[in-house]
Amino acid sequence: MDERERDPRPIGIFDSGVGGLTVLAELARRFPGESFIYLGDTARVPYGAKSARTVERYTLQAASFLLNKGVKAMVAACNTASALGLAALRAAEPHLPVLGVIQPGCRAAVATTRSHRVGVIGTRSTVASGAYPDALALLEPRIRAVALACPLFVPLAEEGWLDHPATRLIVAESLAPLRHEGVDALILGCTHYPLLAPIIAEVMGEGVALVDSASAVADELEQRFIDVILPAPEGRPQRMDYLVTDIPDRFVEMARRILPGLPVHGVEMVDL
Amino acid sequence: MDERERDPRPIGIFDSGVGGLTVLAELARRFPGESFIYLGDTARVPYGAKSARTVERYTLQAASFLLNKGVKAMVAACNTASALGLAALRAAEPHLPVLGVIQPGCRAAVATTRSHRVGVIGTRSTVASGAYPDALALLEPRIRAVALACPLFVPLAEEGWLDHPATRLIVAESLAPLRHEGVDALILGCTHYPLLAPIIAEVMGEGVALVDSASAVADELEQRFIDVILPAPEGRPQRMDYLVTDIPDRFVEMARRILPGLPVHGVEMVDL
Repeated sequence: MDERERDPRPIGIFDSGVGGLTVLAELARRFPGESFIYLGDTARVPYGAKSARTVERYTLQAASFLLNKGVKAMVAACNTASALGLAALRAAEPHLPVLGVIQPGCRAAVATTRSHRVGVIGTRSTVASGAYPDALALLEPRIRAVALACPLFVPLAEEGWLDHPATRLIVAESLAPLRHEGVDALILGCTHYPLLAPIIAEVMGEGVALVDSASAVADELEQRFIDVILPAPEGRPQRMDYLVTDIPDRFVEMARRILPGLPVHGVEMVDL
Repeated sequence: MDERERDPRPIGIFDSGVGGLTVLAELARRFPGESFIYLGDTARVPYGAKSARTVERYTLQAASFLLNKGVKAMVAACNTASALGLAALRAAEPHLPVLGVIQPGCRAAVATTRSHRVGVIGTRSTVASGAYPDALALLEPRIRAVALACPLFVPLAEEGWLDHPATRLIVAESLAPLRHEGVDALILGCTHYPLLAPIIAEVMGEGVALVDSASAVADELEQRFIDVILPAPEGRPQRMDYLVTDIPDRFVEMARRILPGLPVHGVEMVDL
């Protein structure tokens, strides 16, 4: 492709807060020629117990804000926004390449499972939406999906109780309904959950593969939007901008804890 | 006082979500002649990790909404809003009788303590504001206040893990810094915390009195705004209206769990 044809505009990544940085880190690593604008709606986090209507409204506001910033494509890194807000966003912006985290996660799970029994854990709203079982059934009708809300996992991860006996008790009790379902793949359907992956893996046992959507999203972005991304470095430094809706301090502190390798600075506070 | 002089307008109660219903229940019991409008900002709950600027903005929006509904006085039942938003609200509405939960709670603690060492637990933002130690020092300069953020207590209470070994572990570890401070009174500086009172009392031991602000708020309302309240029933039924910013379903479900005696119906969704 000729250099002049490439679209230099950044890719927008939207999340309810800090969790989507796991997706940003993977995309930045995979597409070093791309620039990114990350928007975290930290004033209104968490989305996981909010209604479909509210999450839809917040998603449209975020997308409209990122479009005004000149993004060429958008990734909804938040599972709840992907489950509840994406249809409205696609209807409102039919020409914008938009990717959520649910389909990529489901594709990875389908490629992993042999028993055709797939577990999904997520926030209350993500699970209530039925988005994961629906997408799994579309991809592979033989799959039996068992979805379970784990509402305490986000606060435990956010507060850094990653390796504590109380966390172990809560994870074990929360996942108990999945233990006798014969699942051999478990989708971590919330960007915070990978932080608890060691305990989740221990509780589920060796026969269950954990599916994290970050690398699946990168695969899907490459396959579906190859025309908009810049696959090779261009000699210019990769640019990353961070926008948040509440004051940046805690966002920066949590980002450093979650992703020590990701340079998070120059975070700007914005009003959607 | 002549019947005609009484002000029949309702009292507004504002909270970030469902926790302030503990305050509403006490006020409704104490002032059966009054009507109330409860506004829960359930779309943007929790406030406890948001910045001062954001909480201030949300508090002003809620107050302006309640004023348009015709309230004659306002109670900020949310500790975080009381700590961070009340000064701005009083500046914006100098003629509106406004009450927070912090001063009443402090007054009750001062009346309770003998050691002059008072513990305060609350959300991260409430504790960071310093509002409780400041108010305690104003009331009684000899008091030494020890404030501690307990950010996991709200999700544990909201999710109903009220009597679980994991909750016991988290409460014990969270309160450990207070155990050797010699406090004999502990202010529950968040409207959700009374739900965990049995475990908190057990962890703190017999020598520590728990101070819940609901009845202290009713005392203060009676003392300071006696001219605006209707102390005796008037033959007309007490009216309670409920407004929330997200869909009402989960609010109603949680209200029934938290306060089985409070009739919560006809909940209306509004946009601040």
